[in-house]
Amino acid sequence: MFVVLVYDVNVKRIPHVHKVCRRYLYWVQNSVFEGEITEEKLKELVKELRKIIDEEEDSLIIFKFRFKNMVRRTIVGKDKSDGGSDYIV
Amino acid sequence: MFVVLVYDVNVKRIPHVHKVCRRYLYWVQNSVFEGEITEEKLKELVKELRKIIDEEEDSLIIFKFRFKNMVRRTIVGKDKSDGGSDYIV
Repeated sequence: MFVVLVYDVNVKRIPHVHKVCRRYLYWVQNSVFEGEITEEKLKELVKELRKIIDEEEDSLIIFKFRFKNMVRRTIVGKDKSDGGSDYIV
Repeated sequence: MFVVLVYDVNVKRIPHVHKVCRRYLYWVQNSVFEGEITEEKLKELVKELRKIIDEEEDSLIIFKFRFKNMVRRTIVGKDKSDGGSDYIV
């Protein structure tokens, strides 16, 4: 499965959230991560993130695709990503 | 076509970028918009955004899917979206 994760969390929790996400996914831009991940690993990631975030204030959006080739990514402007840019078309 | 647009722009340009995106897509969270859009309208949106952003500093990421049902969205924590939440599964 391929996922895109976008977080919107209080600034004081960003470094911790970022660090956890980076163990599972590639950082794309600002608050955006993506990567191939199993359902099990994703559950593990969400479980870890739930311990960090304040669910009354913060949110995570996860877009899931069965296959990476179902999605095309286009970057306009500066490319800040550190991986996974191989599928830009 | 269904798109998810995430912007990472200098804070002083956020209100302008936000306003333009909102004319074409639904606001989901923080810097995330999504919605059904034609290729032509998307080009128009990107053209408008290119006039606002500084391409040396800012970036936009656009994820495109042929069909909305290719993607599943999950929100963890606070749901800040103003639309399109009908396809959460």
